[in-house]
Amino acid sequence: MNTRVQHPCRGCIDVHTHVVPHDFPAYVGKQPDAPWPSMREAQPCHRHVMISGSVYRTVSNQAWDTEVRRTDMARLDVERHVLSPMPELLSYWFDAEDGAMLSRYLNETLADMVAQAPDRFSALGAAPLQDIDRAIGEMEFAVGTLGLAGIEVGSNVNGVPIGDPRFWPFFEAAEACGAAIFVHPLRPAGMDRLVGPASLEQIVAFPGEIGLATASIITGGLLSRFPRLRIALSHGGGAIQALLPRMQYSWECQRALRDAIPIAPVNVARALYYDDLLYSATAIRALIEMVGDDRVMIGTDYPFAIMDADPAARVTSLGLGAAIEEALRWRNAAAWLGMR
Amino acid sequence: MNTRVQHPCRGCIDVHTHVVPHDFPAYVGKQPDAPWPSMREAQPCHRHVMISGSVYRTVSNQAWDTEVRRTDMARLDVERHVLSPMPELLSYWFDAEDGAMLSRYLNETLADMVAQAPDRFSALGAAPLQDIDRAIGEMEFAVGTLGLAGIEVGSNVNGVPIGDPRFWPFFEAAEACGAAIFVHPLRPAGMDRLVGPASLEQIVAFPGEIGLATASIITGGLLSRFPRLRIALSHGGGAIQALLPRMQYSWECQRALRDAIPIAPVNVARALYYDDLLYSATAIRALIEMVGDDRVMIGTDYPFAIMDADPAARVTSLGLGAAIEEALRWRNAAAWLGMR
Repeated sequence: MNTRVQHPCRGCIDVHTHVVPHDFPAYVGKQPDAPWPSMREAQPCHRHVMISGSVYRTVSNQAWDTEVRRTDMARLDVERHVLSPMPELLSYWFDAEDGAMLSRYLNETLADMVAQAPDRFSALGAAPLQDIDRAIGEMEFAVGTLGLAGIEVGSNVNGVPIGDPRFWPFFEAAEACGAAIFVHPLRPAGMDRLVGPASLEQIVAFPGEIGLATASIITGGLLSRFPRLRIALSHGGGAIQALLPRMQYSWECQRALRDAIPIAPVNVARALYYDDLLYSATAIRALIEMVGDDRVMIGTDYPFAIMDADPAARVTSLGLGAAIEEALRWRNAAAWLGMR
Repeated sequence: MNTRVQHPCRGCIDVHTHVVPHDFPAYVGKQPDAPWPSMREAQPCHRHVMISGSVYRTVSNQAWDTEVRRTDMARLDVERHVLSPMPELLSYWFDAEDGAMLSRYLNETLADMVAQAPDRFSALGAAPLQDIDRAIGEMEFAVGTLGLAGIEVGSNVNGVPIGDPRFWPFFEAAEACGAAIFVHPLRPAGMDRLVGPASLEQIVAFPGEIGLATASIITGGLLSRFPRLRIALSHGGGAIQALLPRMQYSWECQRALRDAIPIAPVNVARALYYDDLLYSATAIRALIEMVGDDRVMIGTDYPFAIMDADPAARVTSLGLGAAIEEALRWRNAAAWLGMR
């Protein structure tokens, strides 16, 4: 069972922060051209993430060093980071055995970071969802043995949206072991629709992708099967703000849709959690109005270039009053993480 | 030149209403298996749109009969319908000569409908964008000779987003002839991300697709090339509500993005027009807050199942006051259409 830690100080919890390990072990698998990651020195305090001989991204020591993080956290008035792997490391496109090896290494790295300051860090591990049985086994190890709070999953697994029923056994096990689930965009739909620099994959395609993932959870009926699941969507659920009223309107008008989708879309949406990574008070307020003020949490994408720079000020900028601000700062996150 | 008609009565203008002709001419082209559409009798007052031997959709006489429309318009307190083809009829996947033939037939049909009540109808025609030169020729005929207000274009043309520079010659000609441009989702990205009935193509994938099209217009620099273009996005620009603050934030933080994108994303977004087809006062107000109260117009998707049933009440529900309501009801649409 998940170790139900306390969050006693009640400062901000940032549920969306990423980790890249300082190193990866050498590849010991069986695939001739496995795109196994490695790290290489870069400018001071930085390292390159190397994949298949190329620099995938250059990251700073914020990605692995808990002391550097704690300095940033103090400056930003954040009490707790929820750590999760840089999503590309989820590696669903690996051979399943390789995926399981990398997941295990990531989960042990995350557990080590949490152990350095359990009052400051929680973690969401990786599970090799290209093989459901291995993914369940790794989740149970990560949560039950290592004490992680849950699992970060991609918005899709090799193109299959995360709400597809083929993932139900995984979510059944997540519900049983009390794992919090964090859904993050990965290899997004719409890449052929971008006009401009490569960074538009994250900037433009991610919000649509997480919106599609959220919609798949709603239309696939996941929460009617596993009502105690605690699932959070990153990037504020992205396009779900534009999708949800349209889904609800269609569901009310069209009998065939009501027959296919067991719970009203707005009611499913109000049973999910969301980070507030929308970069706009208008957008965050609209999200809260749609899903409820008990469903939204701070998430920044620390330490990447696109991170929301001042999460505490973001909450204050909403002008929603002290009780809702407290819910957004930590109370909703503590509920999602299963803390006491 | 576009005939700059007046809109003297100042009732609601619905910019998003679709037409299917009562009949199509027999196919006279050269392709052995052209998916040329035809119409077949269905239940009373309805006809099937047949494509490649299958029923693509069954539509009522609202789709072609201006008298039926006028009865509905009177009931809904709508003074003017802006007519545009059912998007699937844009047929960008046809052989270019076939596409040009079908566009011509659609444009003549639309012109006939407008001629039956020019004080009640405007129209946006089709242009075969699989062949830019033919598309320019057809637009100039539709606007200059037939007097249509502009052209409906797909969010993508065979997978190429509408903001791609390869369409610049078309938009240069649109600016020159004063054509209003209406961008509508078509064959959307993310079809492999849907879990549920086929109608999710429209319900779930369309808002993301039109968001990606809007983003491509912003990142591709279209309005910095052709600043007098009048472009409207259907479905309220869809996911653009989630995308725009993220695009703006990244543009401000990342030098490479500022170098690649000439005008700040929020400023481009505020130079576009949008219909209000978001099914939610919260979402429409958020759109207006982002793009301005001079940019949003009534659009309903009449006469399809997903149409917003009471457009005048939708505007009133926003609670934005008489001046903004008047802008939303007709003034913004008249400006976009180039009316006096």
